[in-house]
Amino acid sequence: MSRTPDTWILTAQCPSLLGTVDVVTRFLFEQGCYVTEHHSFDDRLSSRFFIRVEFRAPAGFDEDGFRDKLAEQVTPFDMQTELTPPGYRAKVVIMVSKADHCLNDLLYRQRIGQLPMEITAVISNHPDLAHLAEWHGIPYHHFPLNPNDKPVQERKVLQVVKDTGAELVVLARYMQVLSADMCNRLDGRAINIHHSLLPGFKGAKPYHQAYQKGVKLVGATAHFINNDLDEGPIIAQGVESVDHAHYPEDLVAKGRDIECLTLARAVGYFLERRVFLNANRTVVL
Amino acid sequence: MSRTPDTWILTAQCPSLLGTVDVVTRFLFEQGCYVTEHHSFDDRLSSRFFIRVEFRAPAGFDEDGFRDKLAEQVTPFDMQTELTPPGYRAKVVIMVSKADHCLNDLLYRQRIGQLPMEITAVISNHPDLAHLAEWHGIPYHHFPLNPNDKPVQERKVLQVVKDTGAELVVLARYMQVLSADMCNRLDGRAINIHHSLLPGFKGAKPYHQAYQKGVKLVGATAHFINNDLDEGPIIAQGVESVDHAHYPEDLVAKGRDIECLTLARAVGYFLERRVFLNANRTVVL
Amino acid sequence: MSRTPDTWILTAQCPSLLGTVDVVTRFLFEQGCYVTEHHSFDDRLSSRFFIRVEFRAPAGFDEDGFRDKLAEQVTPFDMQTELTPPGYRAKVVIMVSKADHCLNDLLYRQRIGQLPMEITAVISNHPDLAHLAEWHGIPYHHFPLNPNDKPVQERKVLQVVKDTGAELVVLARYMQVLSADMCNRLDGRAINIHHSLLPGFKGAKPYHQAYQKGVKLVGATAHFINNDLDEGPIIAQGVESVDHAHYPEDLVAKGRDIECLTLARAVGYFLERRVFLNANRTVVL
Amino acid sequence: MSRTPDTWILTAQCPSLLGTVDVVTRFLFEQGCYVTEHHSFDDRLSSRFFIRVEFRAPAGFDEDGFRDKLAEQVTPFDMQTELTPPGYRAKVVIMVSKADHCLNDLLYRQRIGQLPMEITAVISNHPDLAHLAEWHGIPYHHFPLNPNDKPVQERKVLQVVKDTGAELVVLARYMQVLSADMCNRLDGRAINIHHSLLPGFKGAKPYHQAYQKGVKLVGATAHFINNDLDEGPIIAQGVESVDHAHYPEDLVAKGRDIECLTLARAVGYFLERRVFLNANRTVVL
Repeated sequence: MSRTPDTWILTAQCPSLLGTVDVVTRFLFEQGCYVTEHHSFDDRLSSRFFIRVEFRAPAGFDEDGFRDKLAEQVTPFDMQTELTPPGYRAKVVIMVSKADHCLNDLLYRQRIGQLPMEITAVISNHPDLAHLAEWHGIPYHHFPLNPNDKPVQERKVLQVVKDTGAELVVLARYMQVLSADMCNRLDGRAINIHHSLLPGFKGAKPYHQAYQKGVKLVGATAHFINNDLDEGPIIAQGVESVDHAHYPEDLVAKGRDIECLTLARAVGYFLERRVFLNANRTVVL
Repeated sequence: MSRTPDTWILTAQCPSLLGTVDVVTRFLFEQGCYVTEHHSFDDRLSSRFFIRVEFRAPAGFDEDGFRDKLAEQVTPFDMQTELTPPGYRAKVVIMVSKADHCLNDLLYRQRIGQLPMEITAVISNHPDLAHLAEWHGIPYHHFPLNPNDKPVQERKVLQVVKDTGAELVVLARYMQVLSADMCNRLDGRAINIHHSLLPGFKGAKPYHQAYQKGVKLVGATAHFINNDLDEGPIIAQGVESVDHAHYPEDLVAKGRDIECLTLARAVGYFLERRVFLNANRTVVL
Repeated sequence: MSRTPDTWILTAQCPSLLGTVDVVTRFLFEQGCYVTEHHSFDDRLSSRFFIRVEFRAPAGFDEDGFRDKLAEQVTPFDMQTELTPPGYRAKVVIMVSKADHCLNDLLYRQRIGQLPMEITAVISNHPDLAHLAEWHGIPYHHFPLNPNDKPVQERKVLQVVKDTGAELVVLARYMQVLSADMCNRLDGRAINIHHSLLPGFKGAKPYHQAYQKGVKLVGATAHFINNDLDEGPIIAQGVESVDHAHYPEDLVAKGRDIECLTLARAVGYFLERRVFLNANRTVVL
Repeated sequence: MSRTPDTWILTAQCPSLLGTVDVVTRFLFEQGCYVTEHHSFDDRLSSRFFIRVEFRAPAGFDEDGFRDKLAEQVTPFDMQTELTPPGYRAKVVIMVSKADHCLNDLLYRQRIGQLPMEITAVISNHPDLAHLAEWHGIPYHHFPLNPNDKPVQERKVLQVVKDTGAELVVLARYMQVLSADMCNRLDGRAINIHHSLLPGFKGAKPYHQAYQKGVKLVGATAHFINNDLDEGPIIAQGVESVDHAHYPEDLVAKGRDIECLTLARAVGYFLERRVFLNANRTVVL
């Protein structure tokens, strides 16, 4: 999993077709690239092909030339490719409300380099967590939500995303529903942590719902957001055992650890270019 | 957990009241009983008290006298008690359809003595699994289901339960909905294994539903049956990780292990007198 | 698990004897205390009895009188009791070296009130983590280790423990072996996190050992320290799956999460008075 | 994971070298083979390359021609390849002593087709489990062990393996140490289930060892056998939580489920051609 400092990542997807693997591996070989890990999957139900390759580039590797020639090769396959250089750190915006456990966890993982990202901003509809962001030297934007003016607030959020060049937005317990327009603009690049096992407990207060149902397991779900609330493609899920002695507030407490771990895992998969959208599901290579 | 051969189990439940613990422990002490494990829980939301005690009886222990005196003591508390002698093996009826993994698992666990039960009959709406029951020397009843005559079939089932003195009915992948009347008659003593994490995927073909939703975890739920289909009080749940490469049939295959383990765990809890009904939830001590 | 604000905890242990449960429950009843949870265990191999009770005290509860009368009652049983008032927060000293993940995690859990403790000091043999402690407003003591003068350094540590009234010392990746004398002085009140599943990988660099052995699971162990290095009574263990693609540095990264969770769980058990020493093992009620 | 009925599996390994991936994928493409899943891994510490490909063959696929041409192509890479046809069921010999849980589990999985194997014989040093094998219609060989004559007994075992064309030997709780000679002859094709987490508890009675150490997790390890007792390359490990109330016999009981699942998982990986030897470790693709 850990990579040498000269390792590139190439990912791609396209409709299923004979030759999809070959066109990629042949090209890499011809460019003198040394493949260290290759994982591809052809989904026979959705008829789509997904591939992720880690490789070491040869001396004098010409990134622009590589991209150009690759684009030419894969044109007949209608293949979307993405090339990620060694040491690349994606720019990320984090959105929060008042709960800070996921934010705290993500900031820590950035700080020690466990998640290869650069958090460019923390945005909240509340002022509460400013100090936490600031201690880590990260700009904090307090954009309150006026019920009549969600579009205005969302435009501000999108402006920060654009201005800071963020490619990923992480909703780290941001307790607001995004508008359809916002969902569309962030399609495939906004990850939410839902504090429950989806689709079991959609909607509000899932831990209280779980208590009412007397479940013996609680969990969390990290998923891409889409227009269908709590229904976006799932990236990762985590779970932990509970028993009759867990009152709703105990489920909330127990849930924090699973939420942190599940969200961090999903963000890590995204940053390592492991996650692919496959209609309303994901492929994680 | 393992008990010496002279260990009794006493369980009880009643409304919350000062003195519930004391009335039990004082009585046991006065009878010369040696408590080896005691677990009690007073649910502050449902205002009910639950207790389970393992104890070794003194020489010359008089079971009938014990029961009589205990009943007298606990009368003011409206306490329902249950006393289980050392070496007690509950009589159990198992219901199946065509899938045999849970049946095979339960038969094995009975055979090696891991579950302290005596399976008195296997009942099915299909003839397929007769040989399996018979190899274990257990009567197999094939009661086909005529859609117009479910009441007749269910009366036959209840007759076997009654005739064999079974205190527990295990629906080990019995793929039929029980009538409301049947549910009432078996209230608190029929355990079903649902091949999914409830309440996520109620109804038919839960693994196919799970595939459609792209979940990253599948599970199973063992629960008491009640009139509300797939909503009975949950006793145990199990879960396992899956990924994009699991097609629906792979989820089915993966699910078999979790179903076996989860059902066996729930049945074991029941047989060891650990499970208490608490409205639509359970307490497992 | 969560308790109402008027809930006390009573714990005790003593040699196995008829009447141990009764003496406690009868006393609580006579004092008008309402038991909400009771768990006791009599270990038939070590012949010792352990009990933990949560109870709500009556109006006008006299703590000192309670303690005195209880001491009198349990004298014949050679019973050591401990009474913990509602809202009690134990004072805790944390020791670290350079790795900060466990410290960061414990500070966070204190901050949000998930662990009912007051961290009175952070002590390290390195200066690196001072800023982290200080941001949380907690005194940081840098006591460097001079190889020839460990006794001096340890006396300073013990002085801080004494001065701040700490009842628990948490070694949160403190990478130094404590002297026998220090171990004795902290017997039963110092918890270490070992970054491996004990007893599998004792000694240095356990993740590298694990890699060499090609294990498919890595874990962490929280245990009381004693004179026998990496052999103290185990309180909690955690585990996670790994595969061939995890190089040693990946195991280290993966281990951080398990270490944090396992240590926090063990500390939580201790603070909730769930942990009892039972020779070289623990009982966790 | 499930495959269409026309899916082949190609696996290979060789020293690390530029072009290893390309030589395989290019050949498959030129033969008109459609790759549905491809996973390859180049281990930078052992400098070896491992690859596993699932593919659908074109109409009129010539297996012999494919093998011949492939052998020619990969010669420069010193690559060992293995081609597995659709529907292939490996022949397997199972060895047992008296405990039957793993045998029972493997027989069941064969019976329902979950493990694509044909059990050709069950061999034991005891007569006890003959009826179980025979009910499944599988020959049972009772080869008692005379302490002075282990070589003779082992020759009989090897003769059965040879006569029945078995490519895999599963030691399903066979409680005898194999001779060095036997280990060599079965190198890379004999899987043992060790009833503990290795390397924690080598040698006899691991659950009793685990109890003495007071562990909070017990597990099982499926590994290839080699000359170094309890040290062969690990294929799969499983784990479950235990507490102070688990006496040694409870650990044994709890262990049975983990042993069954862990062994079945390892055998499944082997049968699906996912397991590669990598010195004293394994790669599982």
